[in-house]
Parts: sequence; C-alpha cells; structure tokens
Amino acid sequence: MSAMEKKYVIGLDYGTDSARALVVDAHTGETLASSVKYYPRWKEGLYCVPAANQWRQHPKDYLEVLEASVREALGKCAPEVAAGVVGIAFDTTGSTPVFTDEAGTPLSLLPGFEEDPDAMFILWKDHTAVKEAAEINQKCKASDIDYSQYEGGIYSAEWLWAKAAHVLRSNAAVAEKAYSLVEHCEWLPAVLTGVKDVHEVVRSRCAEGHKAMWHDSWGGLPPEEFLVAIEPKLAGFRARMFDKTETADKPVGTLCKEWADRLGLSTDVVVAGGAFDCHMGAVGAAVTPKTLVRVIGTSTCDIMVASYEEVGDKQIKGICGQVDGSVIPGMVGLEAGQSSFGDVYAMFRRVLEFPVRNILPKAGVEAGVSEEQVQRLVDATCDGIMTELTVQAERIPLEESTMVATDWINGRRTPDANQLLKGTISGFTLGTTAPLIFRALVEATAFGTKAIVDRFISEGCPIESVIGIGGIALKSPFVMQVMSDVLDMPIKVCNTDQACALGAAMFAATAAGVYPKVEDAIAAMNSGFAKEYHPDHDNHKKYLQLYGNYQKLGEFTEKELYN
Amino acid sequence: MSAMEKKYVIGLDYGTDSARALVVDAHTGETLASSVKYYPRWKEGLYCVPAANQWRQHPKDYLEVLEASVREALGKCAPEVAAGVVGIAFDTTGSTPVFTDEAGTPLSLLPGFEEDPDAMFILWKDHTAVKEAAEINQKCKASDIDYSQYEGGIYSAEWLWAKAAHVLRSNAAVAEKAYSLVEHCEWLPAVLTGVKDVHEVVRSRCAEGHKAMWHDSWGGLPPEEFLVAIEPKLAGFRARMFDKTETADKPVGTLCKEWADRLGLSTDVVVAGGAFDCHMGAVGAAVTPKTLVRVIGTSTCDIMVASYEEVGDKQIKGICGQVDGSVIPGMVGLEAGQSSFGDVYAMFRRVLEFPVRNILPKAGVEAGVSEEQVQRLVDATCDGIMTELTVQAERIPLEESTMVATDWINGRRTPDANQLLKGTISGFTLGTTAPLIFRALVEATAFGTKAIVDRFISEGCPIESVIGIGGIALKSPFVMQVMSDVLDMPIKVCNTDQACALGAAMFAATAAGVYPKVEDAIAAMNSGFAKEYHPDHDNHKKYLQLYGNYQKLGEFTEKELYN
Repeated sequence: MSAMEKKYVIGLDYGTDSARALVVDAHTGETLASSVKYYPRWKEGLYCVPAANQWRQHPKDYLEVLEASVREALGKCAPEVAAGVVGIAFDTTGSTPVFTDEAGTPLSLLPGFEEDPDAMFILWKDHTAVKEAAEINQKCKASDIDYSQYEGGIYSAEWLWAKAAHVLRSNAAVAEKAYSLVEHCEWLPAVLTGVKDVHEVVRSRCAEGHKAMWHDSWGGLPPEEFLVAIEPKLAGFRARMFDKTETADKPVGTLCKEWADRLGLSTDVVVAGGAFDCHMGAVGAAVTPKTLVRVIGTSTCDIMVASYEEVGDKQIKGICGQVDGSVIPGMVGLEAGQSSFGDVYAMFRRVLEFPVRNILPKAGVEAGVSEEQVQRLVDATCDGIMTELTVQAERIPLEESTMVATDWINGRRTPDANQLLKGTISGFTLGTTAPLIFRALVEATAFGTKAIVDRFISEGCPIESVIGIGGIALKSPFVMQVMSDVLDMPIKVCNTDQACALGAAMFAATAAGVYPKVEDAIAAMNSGFAKEYHPDHDNHKKYLQLYGNYQKLGEFTEKELYN
Repeated sequence: MSAMEKKYVIGLDYGTDSARALVVDAHTGETLASSVKYYPRWKEGLYCVPAANQWRQHPKDYLEVLEASVREALGKCAPEVAAGVVGIAFDTTGSTPVFTDEAGTPLSLLPGFEEDPDAMFILWKDHTAVKEAAEINQKCKASDIDYSQYEGGIYSAEWLWAKAAHVLRSNAAVAEKAYSLVEHCEWLPAVLTGVKDVHEVVRSRCAEGHKAMWHDSWGGLPPEEFLVAIEPKLAGFRARMFDKTETADKPVGTLCKEWADRLGLSTDVVVAGGAFDCHMGAVGAAVTPKTLVRVIGTSTCDIMVASYEEVGDKQIKGICGQVDGSVIPGMVGLEAGQSSFGDVYAMFRRVLEFPVRNILPKAGVEAGVSEEQVQRLVDATCDGIMTELTVQAERIPLEESTMVATDWINGRRTPDANQLLKGTISGFTLGTTAPLIFRALVEATAFGTKAIVDRFISEGCPIESVIGIGGIALKSPFVMQVMSDVLDMPIKVCNTDQACALGAAMFAATAAGVYPKVEDAIAAMNSGFAKEYHPDHDNHKKYLQLYGNYQKLGEFTEKELYN
C-alpha cells in the first residue's frame, strides 16, 4: 500500500482531567502519535466546590484542548498523515450534560453566563442532585412504567434529569435561558460538523439510553407529564429535545470549514457519533460476550456486551443500564461500575501525606534545610507512598490480613446505586499499620468488583473472565492479582494504555467506511494483551470468608448508619 | 517545726514503661524531688511478642529502677531528708503476676529460667490467655457461686488466674518449678522487708480482690475444685497461696538491712502494703464519692469509692470489680476502664508516621541531605503529629464531624469485658482527612467513657463529676473538653502529674503513723486542681446523636464480626 493509500483516524478521549488525541493507522490500529492536554480552568479548580461535591467544566476547556491536542499529535506525524485522516470520533465522560440555547450553544458561552457554573457542563461525578435523584426514583416506582428499568432500576444523582432538575430549581437565570440539554459526547461532534440548531444535534444512543431513560419501547424519552412531575420547570424540554438516538458507528457529518482549518484537516473528514469513554474503551479493549471489561482508574466503569438471545428485554437489576447498541451496534451494552476504586487508595495516600505536608516543611526550616530541598523531600516522600504501601502490603500473608473495609467512599454505583453510603474500615488493633490498612482497602475494592460480577451472574448474564484497562490495570499487579483471586477468574490487561481513544479511533474508522462493522475494526485494530493474571484458588477460598465480613459490614452500614 | 521534726515519705509508682520515685513532705504533700527510670530490658523490647500480644517484664528491671530512682530522687534533696524518711509505699500495674518458688522468688531470678518469658511478670496488658479467660467465664457461669460476681461478672484475660492457667498449660518447666503466684505490688514490699517465705508475703486486698476472685464471703480465693476444673495443674496452688488480704494503709514491715543500705535509708522506715497504680492514683487525686477518677494514659483506669450504705453487696455488672478497701479502707472501691485511650491516638500516629519513617530517609539521601539532618527531620515530623492533628481537629465544627469510630483497638475492658473486639472507623468519603479521622477517634474515646459512666449510673452508682489524672488529662485540653461535652459533666484535672506516686506517698504516711486514716492524708497532702472543664450543653445534644451511631456500630461489630 502506498503512502497515499494509507488511511488514518483520530480518536479523542475526554477524561475527567484531560483529553487525549490519538492518531491511529486505520488498517493496523497502530498509534502514530498522541497528545494529552489538561483542561486549563479545571486544573485551577475553577467552578467546583469539593465540599458540596459540585464539579463543573467550562466548554472553553473542551474546545481549547481539542485544537491543542489534535494539532500536537498531528505535528508529531509525517506531513502526509494529516491528509490521510478520514475520520474522527469522540468519547467523553458522562452523564456530563449542559443547558444550551436554540442553537445548541452551552449557556456558559453566552454573554452573562460565562462564569455561572450552572451554565457549564455538569461533570459525571457532580453529586449536587442527590435530592432530585431520590425524587425521580420515587416517581419511577409510583409510575405505571418504571422508566429507570433499563438503567438498573435506580436513577443516579450523576445522571441527566437529576442534574437538570437541580439546576432549574436553584438557578432562575439559567432556567429562564435554557432551551435544551445536550451531553458532552453529543456536543463535540455537533461543534465539529457546524451544527447551528440544537434540533440537529445527533443524539447518542449510549448517553441517552444509559442516563436519560431513553428507550424505544416508550417512544424515546419519558413522557412530558412524568418529567413535569419531577420538576415543573422541565415543561417543554422533551418536545425541544429529541425522539431518536444513533449508535456511534454512524457518521454525524463531515468537518465544517472552521474546524477543518483549526485542526489542519480536510472538510472530507467524517465525524462519528459520540459515546461515553468506557463504552468506546470496551471496544478498544476488544470486548466479547461473557467478558467484563473494566476501565479501572479513580473509579471503575464496567462494560459487558450480550446478544439479544441472552438478555432480550430482561431487566438486569441494580446495574447502571442496558442499552441496545451502546457499545457494539446490534448487541446489548450493559454498564456497571464502582464509584471509587483508585480514589480509595488516593484518599488513604492523602491521609498519610498529612505529616509530610503539614509538619515536615516547618521541621525542615528549623533543621536548616533549604526551602527548595524541603520541597523536594515533601514531593519525593508523597510520591513514594503508593509504591512503598504496595511493597509492604503485598508481603502480608493473607492469613494476617484480618481487617475488613468497604469501598464506598464515594457512595456505591453498582450493584444497587446508593449515593448516601460512606466507607468503613474495621479491625483496628494496637498493631495496626498503614500497609495492613492499605491491604484491606485493596481487598475492599476487589470485593466491590465481586459484588458487581456476582450480580451480573445472578441476573443471568454469565461472566467468565475480566479484561482490565486503565492506569491501575497496567501499573498495579498487586491490585490485579488480589482481584483475580477474589473473583476466581483470569484477568487480561490490554496492551494499550489508551483503550478509550483507540476505541474512538475504531468508531472513526467504521463511520468513515474503512470497515463495514465495529467488530471488523476491533479484529483489525486491537492492541492485544500485555499480561494475564490467573487466580489462586486457595487464596480465593480464604477471601470468600473475608468477603462475608465485607457483605455484613456493608449491609449494616447501609441499613443503620447511612440511610 | 524544726528540720529534725520534719517527716518525709517516698511514693513509688511502677507504670508500664518506667518507675517514678517521689520524695514527699509527709505533712504538706509537697514534692521535694522525683526521678523516673525506664525498665532497661523492656525498653529493648525483650521477652515480648507484640503480634501475639505477649508482654512480659523481668524482675531485674523492677529492682534496678527501684534503687536507681530512689537514690536519684534522694540525691536531689537536702542531705537531712533521707534521715527524715519514715515510710515508703508502692503502686504497680496489675494484674501483673509472676510464678515464684517457696521463698517467693520469681522463677526468672532462678538458674535456668533467666530468659524464660513465662517465668517473668506477665504484664497487665498481656493477652495470651484469651482462651483461658473464656473457660474461666464458662466455669463461673456454670458454678453455683459465680466467683467473678464482684469483678463485674466477666473474668479478663488480663487477670491472674487466666494468665496462670495459660502458662501452666504451655510451659512444662515453669509448671514443674512453680510453687506460688504473687502480684507485682505484693512482691516489692516483700523484697524490701526481706521476706524469704512466700507464705509471709502480705497480700494486697486491691490486687487479689479485683483480679483473683478473692472475696470474704467465700473464704478468700475460689475453692480448690473450681481452680482445678479450670486447669488441673492449678492443683495445690490455693493452699500454698493465702486466705487473708490487707489494705495498703497497713504496714508490711520495715526495711531490711540489705535494702536500707541499697536505698540509703534507715531500717526504721515503714513499708506500706502495695496496691494498683490507679487505686493509689485515685487517693492521690483526692477521690470522693460520686466522682469518677480517671487515670488517662495509653488506657484508662477508672476508680470510684462508695459507702456500704450505697453499694453493699449489690453487684455492679460489667465493671472490673468492687472490693472492700481496695482504694480507701472502709469504703468499697469500684474499678472500670477503657483498654485503650491514648493508645488509640498512638495507633493513628504510628499509621501516619509510615511515609516519614519508610520513605523520607531514602528521599533525603537522594536529595543530598545529610543522614543526621534527615534523622532530625524524621524525629521532628513524627513528634509534631499529635500537636498538628489536635490543632486541626479542634477547628472542625462539630456539625462536620460525621465520622464515627469505636475505641476498642485493644478489646474492651468495661462495660462488659470483651477482649475479642477490634476498632472500627466509619464515614470515609473522598474528602476524608487525617484531622477528621483523629477527631472521630477522640470522640470514640469519649464515647467509651460515656458507656462506662452510664453503666455505673444505671447500676445505681451515681456519678456527678470526673477527676482526670495522667498525661492526657494534663496535656490535651481538646480531648478533655470533648469528654466533658460528651458526658455533660464537669471534669477537674489534678495539679500533680504524679497522682499515683503521690497516692503511694499518702499510704506510706498513713502506714508510718503520720495520719490515723488515709482520708486524713488526702486532706493534708492533696495537690489541688489545675483546671476544670465545663460541658457545653448544646454540643452535648449533638454528641448524643453521634453516640447513637457509636452504640450501633459497636453492637454490630461485637455481634457480627468479632465473636
């Protein structure tokens, strides 16, 4: 194949803190170049109130990193590559919705709303709408049709309608101006294809099916009267929004002139539909039936695909949703996840940093160490915590790991969403050490995994193995081995550390016509596996006993302390 | 009064890590000099197995610090003071028993047993006899007379018979050689008065009444058949031990020539009976009825006195014992306590020290800081933890203190002893910080206090105020204020930081005839109060809600996790 015949695609993965652009060979899946750009306003902590769990992102952050990352990635490639790019696709976090005007412009890009957090994207992990989520759940259970039934039967504060109702209630100016709502993964393709009318925004099957109670069987979004019963100010939104959604393999359009110029690409480049990061990540990780694909980072997103023969319209209780085509078109995509995973370890790390950050600097000055040296000591000591904890925790014989913890420090996403939950650690003695606690926390995150896997199985979706992607999967053999032992299942870890962006590239290639189906893109472009963990059956038996304590501790705290 | 007419006494307080000698003016209670000496073998960690909760102390440690501390304290006084000393008294930890031969010599002072931990004093906090304690409790409940009834109805692994049975079972050589058992507080007076026959050792009402099930109503120690049913190798011990016990105001004898010489005192010096540290500490703290005296250190020991009219033979359930004359002769002494208090904070401090001790040294070398400077940084940072935690925890508004913990990291002593319990901390979120955890731990120790106070009250022993003594009472206003708020009671803190040794001095003065009764010694020699804490009633109401969670969490872990 000559250089001129070669085709390239760009996969863009919008994570919580940064976006990654991958330039990928559409035939082999090989990554030619990549670029990571951090959201500048977000990095400064703007518009967020951690104590209130308010997490907002400015649309300008998204647009600035888009141009910068694509330009930088292409800049690392041979000059002819840009001309060979045939498709581009996005995955984003979600539900990360924003209120827009009639043109589909996020309100925070309009005069007067530039600094209003309620006019910005409401990030997936924002928990300001806990009350509204509870009301939606009440309404769902009281309704003839439970519109949450394909979203695990429990609507989350992290999802579109709860967030929308909360903002409409609490911000009159936004409520006055708001015309429609779009998800982050829908907005980016609309911007790139030059959409100027919100009615023309192509709606994501993945986003709307998993988070907005969109379902074919009731004709799209829940009916007007249901939405108005949640919050009267939602009146009219349904009619102004959409009935139809599309899978991400379908082209949304081609690059508009403005964005073709800004990105240095041609206006022939096909823009694919958007979807959530983990759903495209599962594709990037070569998902197959009976395999749980886990994107393991601060939290986890767990994705399965199943045929209609297997799942049909059967409702899988307590997960985050089951949506036709949300992962691979033609199959049911099933989503679950732990609302904290790496965050559990990060919380403990931050607790342990206390003396280093609060006392060491003063002690350094008194000991006559230079300020610069002290800062290096602080940084090096804090940076070394996770490694040292891991080394020492791994040495603890399983028999001596007698502490038990729950992993719910950010509530529980699945099974059975409950945002009110908090974490617990039990088994403190005079001899308790930091590695003993850390080991209990690692086990807790593995137990949280087991609770999800067990639920899928008990609901009739068999799981036989796990594929891990994301930072922790690649970098923490200890965590992965404990997980394999706890599950008594093999775990494969993807070669790529950019499965989400690679999955987006596969959708770009399919939308651009390089492949007829996503499965073909997976077969040609997958990255293979870096490592496989095998369970130790003896350890598994021992963990089962600890898992019993995890269940008891969880049941108690849920019923008695956090209700 | 001329210098020649002045009378002095020496109070010796044997704590867990060190002994303190106080030279006190027998008329005013003024401390002339003091000396603290650490147990040398103990300090090196000899004979102990922390993971197995085995804590042993060598009798040579006790003798060496006795001579050194008394000599040093007297050396700080005017030369005529030594000649004016009329009495000496001991308080020690307990139950801290040792197996002896016929002469009353601890086996570890005999050839062949010098290095055998089972031939040494078994320190109060040793928990190797958990199984034996459970068996004793079973036997007590199955017996016509529950011999534990005046010890709160639950026999502890920390007490004499459990420890004795455990060692006899597990160490054949010690079992073969052992003739009798003496408590630490009985042994020291016996040594100083030159006792060469174990039958002549004056037995402590306090020690034997609280820890060995000694009671007048069944003629002393429990009957032979009961003891043999616990462990056949206990056969014969009862007859070789004793029937009678004495209160500590009674003289045991006068200094033998050897020890008079070693201490630089006259053979006329009266040696008083021994008792446990907290019981003498309560006297040193000027205990009165309806006041709970708390010695607050790594653990707490809580002492009350009540008249017979009030208590009589009524059994106070779930405390550590009620013994005629164990504190003030002629009144019932009641004992309770938390098996960990300062230890709870120390455990958390040690956890937080992890990065400082494990990572900072390496980081320091890499940053080119000298080893000596690094060691100073490590020490200063670790030493600053408690202060910084306290400063930051105190700033947290009570409304934001939503974590809940139990204080049972070393089991629970009272109410209702249960050595199997472990500590729990609940309420972890993404925003959890070290000061938030520390605040929950401080509240947990105060809740443990409330559980004890509530039990005394519900069992008919009214408590209206608290007197605090010990390091934490004097040095931690934050901890004391939380305790006052949680209890809704005023707390006075003793002026002296040596209440136990001062109490011993009061007993020495009484035994030497300076006063007819211990109450007269208290009236003349007490140190007064340094500070009084007053409860904030609003805070108290808020704490009551958290206390409800403490009770629920405790009940759950006791029933479901640690049984």
